[in-house]
Amino acid sequence: MLPRATVGVLFFLGIVPSMAQESRGHISVVLLGATGDLAKKYLWQGLFQLYLDEVSNGHTFTFHGGAQAELERGRKLMYDHLKDLACPLDVLPNRCAVMKDQFLRLTDYRQLKTEEDYATLNQEIQTLLVQEGLEEAGRIFYFSVPPFAYAEIARHINSSCRPPSGAWLRVVLEKPFGHDLHSAQQLADELKTFFQEEEMYRVDHYLGKQAVAHILPFRDQNRKHLDPIWNRHHVERVEIVLKETVDVKNRTSFYEEYGAIRDVLQNHLTEVLMFLTMELPANVSNSEDVLRSKLQTFASLQDLEKNSAVLGQYEAYNSHVREELQKGQDYFSRTPTFAGVLVHLDSLRWEGVPFILTSGKVLDERVGYVRVVFKNQAYCTQHEATWDPEGSQCKPKQLIFYIGHGELNSPAVLVSRNLFKPTMPGSSWKELLDRPQERLFGQRLSDYHVYVPVAERDAYAILISRIYHGKKESFITTENLLASWQFWTPLLTTWANEVPRVYPGGQENGHLLDFEIAGGEVSFVVKETLEVMDARDRQTPDKYKTIQSRFRQSHLITAWSEELVTRLASDIETVAMSAIRRSGEFHMALSGGSSPLALFKQLALHHYGFPWRHTHLWLVDERCVPLSDPESNFGNLYEHLIRHVRVPYFNVHPMPVHLNRRLCVEEDKGPELYANEIGALVANASFDLVLLGVGTDGHTASLFPHSPVGLEGNQEVVFTESPIKPHQRMTFALPLINKAKRVWVLAMGKGKHDIVTVVSRAGNEPKKWPISGVNPTSGQIAWYVDYEALLG
Amino acid sequence: MLPRATVGVLFFLGIVPSMAQESRGHISVVLLGATGDLAKKYLWQGLFQLYLDEVSNGHTFTFHGGAQAELERGRKLMYDHLKDLACPLDVLPNRCAVMKDQFLRLTDYRQLKTEEDYATLNQEIQTLLVQEGLEEAGRIFYFSVPPFAYAEIARHINSSCRPPSGAWLRVVLEKPFGHDLHSAQQLADELKTFFQEEEMYRVDHYLGKQAVAHILPFRDQNRKHLDPIWNRHHVERVEIVLKETVDVKNRTSFYEEYGAIRDVLQNHLTEVLMFLTMELPANVSNSEDVLRSKLQTFASLQDLEKNSAVLGQYEAYNSHVREELQKGQDYFSRTPTFAGVLVHLDSLRWEGVPFILTSGKVLDERVGYVRVVFKNQAYCTQHEATWDPEGSQCKPKQLIFYIGHGELNSPAVLVSRNLFKPTMPGSSWKELLDRPQERLFGQRLSDYHVYVPVAERDAYAILISRIYHGKKESFITTENLLASWQFWTPLLTTWANEVPRVYPGGQENGHLLDFEIAGGEVSFVVKETLEVMDARDRQTPDKYKTIQSRFRQSHLITAWSEELVTRLASDIETVAMSAIRRSGEFHMALSGGSSPLALFKQLALHHYGFPWRHTHLWLVDERCVPLSDPESNFGNLYEHLIRHVRVPYFNVHPMPVHLNRRLCVEEDKGPELYANEIGALVANASFDLVLLGVGTDGHTASLFPHSPVGLEGNQEVVFTESPIKPHQRMTFALPLINKAKRVWVLAMGKGKHDIVTVVSRAGNEPKKWPISGVNPTSGQIAWYVDYEALLG
Repeated sequence: MLPRATVGVLFFLGIVPSMAQESRGHISVVLLGATGDLAKKYLWQGLFQLYLDEVSNGHTFTFHGGAQAELERGRKLMYDHLKDLACPLDVLPNRCAVMKDQFLRLTDYRQLKTEEDYATLNQEIQTLLVQEGLEEAGRIFYFSVPPFAYAEIARHINSSCRPPSGAWLRVVLEKPFGHDLHSAQQLADELKTFFQEEEMYRVDHYLGKQAVAHILPFRDQNRKHLDPIWNRHHVERVEIVLKETVDVKNRTSFYEEYGAIRDVLQNHLTEVLMFLTMELPANVSNSEDVLRSKLQTFASLQDLEKNSAVLGQYEAYNSHVREELQKGQDYFSRTPTFAGVLVHLDSLRWEGVPFILTSGKVLDERVGYVRVVFKNQAYCTQHEATWDPEGSQCKPKQLIFYIGHGELNSPAVLVSRNLFKPTMPGSSWKELLDRPQERLFGQRLSDYHVYVPVAERDAYAILISRIYHGKKESFITTENLLASWQFWTPLLTTWANEVPRVYPGGQENGHLLDFEIAGGEVSFVVKETLEVMDARDRQTPDKYKTIQSRFRQSHLITAWSEELVTRLASDIETVAMSAIRRSGEFHMALSGGSSPLALFKQLALHHYGFPWRHTHLWLVDERCVPLSDPESNFGNLYEHLIRHVRVPYFNVHPMPVHLNRRLCVEEDKGPELYANEIGALVANASFDLVLLGVGTDGHTASLFPHSPVGLEGNQEVVFTESPIKPHQRMTFALPLINKAKRVWVLAMGKGKHDIVTVVSRAGNEPKKWPISGVNPTSGQIAWYVDYEALLG
Repeated sequence: MLPRATVGVLFFLGIVPSMAQESRGHISVVLLGATGDLAKKYLWQGLFQLYLDEVSNGHTFTFHGGAQAELERGRKLMYDHLKDLACPLDVLPNRCAVMKDQFLRLTDYRQLKTEEDYATLNQEIQTLLVQEGLEEAGRIFYFSVPPFAYAEIARHINSSCRPPSGAWLRVVLEKPFGHDLHSAQQLADELKTFFQEEEMYRVDHYLGKQAVAHILPFRDQNRKHLDPIWNRHHVERVEIVLKETVDVKNRTSFYEEYGAIRDVLQNHLTEVLMFLTMELPANVSNSEDVLRSKLQTFASLQDLEKNSAVLGQYEAYNSHVREELQKGQDYFSRTPTFAGVLVHLDSLRWEGVPFILTSGKVLDERVGYVRVVFKNQAYCTQHEATWDPEGSQCKPKQLIFYIGHGELNSPAVLVSRNLFKPTMPGSSWKELLDRPQERLFGQRLSDYHVYVPVAERDAYAILISRIYHGKKESFITTENLLASWQFWTPLLTTWANEVPRVYPGGQENGHLLDFEIAGGEVSFVVKETLEVMDARDRQTPDKYKTIQSRFRQSHLITAWSEELVTRLASDIETVAMSAIRRSGEFHMALSGGSSPLALFKQLALHHYGFPWRHTHLWLVDERCVPLSDPESNFGNLYEHLIRHVRVPYFNVHPMPVHLNRRLCVEEDKGPELYANEIGALVANASFDLVLLGVGTDGHTASLFPHSPVGLEGNQEVVFTESPIKPHQRMTFALPLINKAKRVWVLAMGKGKHDIVTVVSRAGNEPKKWPISGVNPTSGQIAWYVDYEALLG
């Protein structure tokens, strides 16, 4: 027998024959978790809004709330939610009352626990349709349940509650969609066994926020104005911000596992970033084109490194966690409740433009916004007192998607009047002209064109409508989701064991959470007291000047790694200047590996007087990999140094590992070619400087222990085999290295301590430890070893 | 017999025996033009200040005013000036009266016209010294006379009035030092026949302004703070500004020949630019080091082009000129009274930072300043209402050398409090703490550390003191002068026949003189009405869409040159995308010459979606010149395109004109090497696109009429001879060009009209007109010809 509410449904559908005649089919909406918080706060209201909007458009509806609770209890809980449904401002009270009554009669509660429960639901829907003579259009299952319950529900739906062929199935999923790339992939794989990609609608409710939802349409409708300025030449920076005042009390069981990055940045702010930066497809309503463009943009994101982020935790967080999760006083959480992250894109359009993503709890205000700040490219000859907002190009130029709350307390789109007057769809956005004296981001509201929604709509209501219309571009596809996790997971891993900065919360935070950009990294402006003392300590002259001592009877320079790199860079510049004074040229050969990266950065960012125009760069060794491979030594050198400085194109000498479209084949004679090039350009093949590293096995360049070639003999450049991948290498041979005027060896980090100790005592045993064979015939050798490598 | 005043001198020197005993020697100061305006306004006062400052430091002095006037009249004129000498604020009135009396007694007037006059002066100085038992320390000749008089005076001094060996000669010269590079060189050559370089002190009185004079010391004393931020990563822009309210009435006979650039930018503002941008020598008081560094900086200035400047002329200027220079009503001057110029430096430190130099008459205020605006590199998490000037990195950061006048009405140095607290010499600069609420450049004075001089000193007084002390770094050496003219002359030439924008003057100017930067060029923000109509006209769709027609039975695209280049760039992108979709790669071969430069710019600035990562760039032809030569095709391609986009290093294929350290030697087999590279990488040696130009003689690539090679045969790449320098070339041969999938020929400008007409009618006659031999075997040919080339 059908439950009571369904009788009502039948009755109602039965008395509107005209509607049934025109029907485009029946839609069953099943809300799973119908008695939960989200359902209470947003989802029922969104479904009611859907009903209001669409009831006269040809579909018929039934709404089924499902949960674990038994019928009577569940029904009571659910109807407690439903009786509070609000009437939208734009609907007349009388009509609303009638509609609400109809909506309630179309709605029932049912316990959905077992396979049979789902089979019953399925059967009842079919019975209803037969009785009413309706076609089935489709079914929407809205998962408002914890992710651990997803798999079982999905299995039940798939096996017992799919609509017949011809009707569609849409399952709506709520975050979290995993915890990192691996878990997200697992969850996605699992869901894939039950649903087609096109059946899944992953909700990021942020994409339903009116200002966020309007980013793509805005870019599309204002192409004419934006096309010339939507790039690195005009955009100075972009801020994507969600600040909250609330804490996470009573939610720590969820939050402790997630934190600010997973909770807000990985999803909400990343999606906003994509909308801002993706290349605009010709048709922004085509979800496939939008997705393709988004994925290309994900591919152009520069990898995040540890110093791409600053993290904080509000002071009371630990006590909330200890209390709620029954932890002891010695439990200290590392979960960040604040994150500021610097994102760069490696595309021609956005290269160098800082995108700042930031979010936190217990801050001084609740506000969300996207702020695009344009460069001032003008000089205004008249005194600034006379500048007017429309005519002066020297006033600040900003484009703001104001997501909500804050001073405006409304979604809004703001465009500085000296930028352009935007095209806005009049049906949904209206100009705001009151409050002209109020200030936002350093300017009066009257300095902007300000638009607010004609009617404010809740994000869920908007997204439910889009699910109904099948507009997939507002939802997160699996590829999109995994691309985002792929981007964020390395950062999460790096920070997993680090302690975030503690902040008191609210106004008290002062400048404590301000952060600044330098050299592609971010750091807090106010340094930790501990750090300051430490840094001061480390820069005392005697330590900075390094313990000048001997290592293997040669010159040793040692310091903390940062100072060591600073010193090395400065020594290289000195040597370069003197070589150029002497011979007009400076020939430097650099090694691969990760140690030199800090050196390259130092040279690129701090040595403006470096005589690059007269410098030749050579490679000490190279891996036999395609030239675009991230393992390529030259690729790294190019990325981190060459492209930032002005070395003439022809002064750069990559190793020819790629000849005749193949890698490192003996008969292509790559080593001979390189040796000839050296012979032709470097007097006596004696480099001004060869910079080497040392491996934990004692290898240097790509000369490994017991190598049959390269450790002695006449060859200057040779192919060798590495014990670790990629195996094949091209490298300077020891005799060539030993011809150099200067050979400097750089060794840094605890990991190198053992080999440094061994080498300090070893004799000339290149077969065992190739590094010990570095003994320039008439040149100088110097050892740059940091404290960690030297002292362990 | 000695004139009266000299008797006084003798008397005075005689009664101070102790001084004579300690004397470091006697100095004779000769002021030429002693009765003129400059002497009256500044120079006598400056000499009196010198006397006040230095009288007790061991030198004795006499001052000789010289002019063309006869003795009595000149003496009267001169003493009229002298009696008005002011007492500096820091000297007690009694002492000043005594000193003034002494100064007048040490001063005489004399007519200096003929050789004999100078000989007499010389003799009298010697007599005086003998009588007083003094050694001669040196002589200063201050030329306050028009430049046409320089040569004769210089000759007289050199032949008849040089001090005996052991004593120094310093001649002080006032601008203008020429009118352009050529005239400046002439004047310098002339002066060189009379004086040694170290004897000449060219005054730029701006360098005596206290804020200007403090730029180098400031940079030196604040190295610790400035070193990390004095570069393109931190500096957003620099403004160097001298605004005046006065017109040039009564001065048009000078001004009409000079104008704003020669009057202010070439000298004053350029020198300031040098002080700001030069690499700081270890010792900033060493004038040789400073000069060397300055000259290096001059060498790094990017060439100015027409669009590097915007010029204006105040409305009443023409009537001033007509009146004063007796010109008719049909006379329209092209002399600018306003100039805004964008300067870029091609150095690692400053690359990309805009330096804006601007000056004008009849503007809305009188003020001079240097304003260095730093980038905002921070995100401040707290609401901006709470930002404080010292702690918030998000408030504007500026460093200002306030030269004078304006709202402060004093020289000053201002540093935003969130930058750093500067080190300032307490003896000459003091902190200004009153007027905290006043605003300057968008901030309160209390947001800055503000320093003003302890005592304001006139620029001439400061420079005269530096002449006395022999501090040459405050003066313009010949090399320095010529470097500056070399920089400015091309711009002056380009603009010689252009009409500057007319402005009403003062407040009325509104935004009329505001200018903005785009793509390395400047233009007025408010466009000329005429220009707007013209541009609108030119962009009507039918013209923009080009007259699609036929040329040599092939596809013709024609438009105004700008639109043609826009279209060509966009067509190239379309072809690139389709080639990459098909084969994963796009192989494009580009020609040398100047026409493609606009294309390169278009591609670099407006094609963000261009698939550079999959594009290979090849050269159609190359000149046999060293690789760093400005004539190098590859050099130009690199400079204007490659270094702005992300083409992988190994996708760039320069022609090997330089092998085995020599240029284009047959036996080095450069052409074969290039042909092999093409064969290895380009399928069937069939390029996706070959872009050609056409010469007025009908040549294309580097295939010239009647070339014995390259026009037919099997060779793909050949050496050829050009009728114009550089003669030797390497080039694609016709058969290789004709293998391409697409060959596009670009011809622009009136100069190409004749050859375009000829070629339009010619048959296949490659010997006569090599361009007529371009007939792709199975590919497509298209002609991009602008209206000027097509229609004449």
